[in-house]
Amino acid sequence: MTEKLVRDALRDFVAERNWQQFHSAENLAKSISIEAGELLECFQWGDADVDSAKHELADVLTYCLLLADHLGLEPNAIVLEKLALTREKYPVEKARGRSDKYDRL
Amino acid sequence: MTEKLVRDALRDFVAERNWQQFHSAENLAKSISIEAGELLECFQWGDADVDSAKHELADVLTYCLLLADHLGLEPNAIVLEKLALTREKYPVEKARGRSDKYDRL
Amino acid sequence: MTEKLVRDALRDFVAERNWQQFHSAENLAKSISIEAGELLECFQWGDADVDSAKHELADVLTYCLLLADHLGLEPNAIVLEKLALTREKYPVEKARGRSDKYDRL
Amino acid sequence: MTEKLVRDALRDFVAERNWQQFHSAENLAKSISIEAGELLECFQWGDADVDSAKHELADVLTYCLLLADHLGLEPNAIVLEKLALTREKYPVEKARGRSDKYDRL
Repeated sequence: MTEKLVRDALRDFVAERNWQQFHSAENLAKSISIEAGELLECFQWGDADVDSAKHELADVLTYCLLLADHLGLEPNAIVLEKLALTREKYPVEKARGRSDKYDRL
Repeated sequence: MTEKLVRDALRDFVAERNWQQFHSAENLAKSISIEAGELLECFQWGDADVDSAKHELADVLTYCLLLADHLGLEPNAIVLEKLALTREKYPVEKARGRSDKYDRL
Repeated sequence: MTEKLVRDALRDFVAERNWQQFHSAENLAKSISIEAGELLECFQWGDADVDSAKHELADVLTYCLLLADHLGLEPNAIVLEKLALTREKYPVEKARGRSDKYDRL
Repeated sequence: MTEKLVRDALRDFVAERNWQQFHSAENLAKSISIEAGELLECFQWGDADVDSAKHELADVLTYCLLLADHLGLEPNAIVLEKLALTREKYPVEKARGRSDKYDRL
């Protein structure tokens, strides 16, 4: 299964470099913010070219997967679990066509 | 396959609410940064409880998957593609046990 | 007064380059997040050297001052105004020695 | 002078609550990113109302001033110092009317 394959590739990459020592949950959370900023830089003054955005998005995703693994969470599972909660917070009949936060719907 | 299943669940969620109009690549990139900040908030003064971190990580991942889909990219594929590049930038023999950036190795 | 002097130096810098066209409030807000990420990168794996942190902090501050000016706000005034509100939210007797958010005090 | 007045007000606020213990340079850098994300949230789907942006910008500025003080730096001085460097990196004749990064000018 792809999710496990990617997880194992990342684990190997980290273990070969003996980088587990740097990968506390906190450091990984910081890294996600840092890479999210680099992704946003592609859009700083307007539109980005897909290719540079692709690399930065991959960096954000990589740290997200590393943090998920560190916390013992399955990425797809937590996305689906959160989606179920968000569906309740933003019922179709209220949220349709509106970008307001749930407490303003 | 799980990746497609999650992508389709997200597509349905967005389409039902007619939210595609808000999901420009730029807005999704901003959203990733915003959610990365909320995740980081769990670690603002030290360690986070896994449960709150889980929800915030799910939000970051969700917007990453939405942006990947928007740009026509496969999340796992771009992570593996970037990992191959990072392996070259950080060769084991140079990077082992060091957190320095590649241009300082 | 220094605040006005700095503001005017920034205004001149921008006007000479005809960059007002790029400096929408939204673009400046994105720029603050991007530079905040670069500042955080100095602390990604632990402590930063003061000199690199200084430059990145200056960048965050610069965009904050540009956004304040764009919105017609005085930086020192809004900091003091917000501080008054935060004093109320975190009364000394409740908040002393605790890093909890106000809704948990 | 206003800069010192604001700095002292912030110092008092922190000391009264005995919060110096939480304000490591790293924690302040994280806080800047977190608050920058909240500011960006005002612009997530488009334009912000000035009033909510004002409060979030004040929060970013507050942590910037706290970090500057922590590192022994004067906010206005480092902004002007960095501005001099940026003027060199982006000479008027090259940068005029262009949003490109300096290495692409």
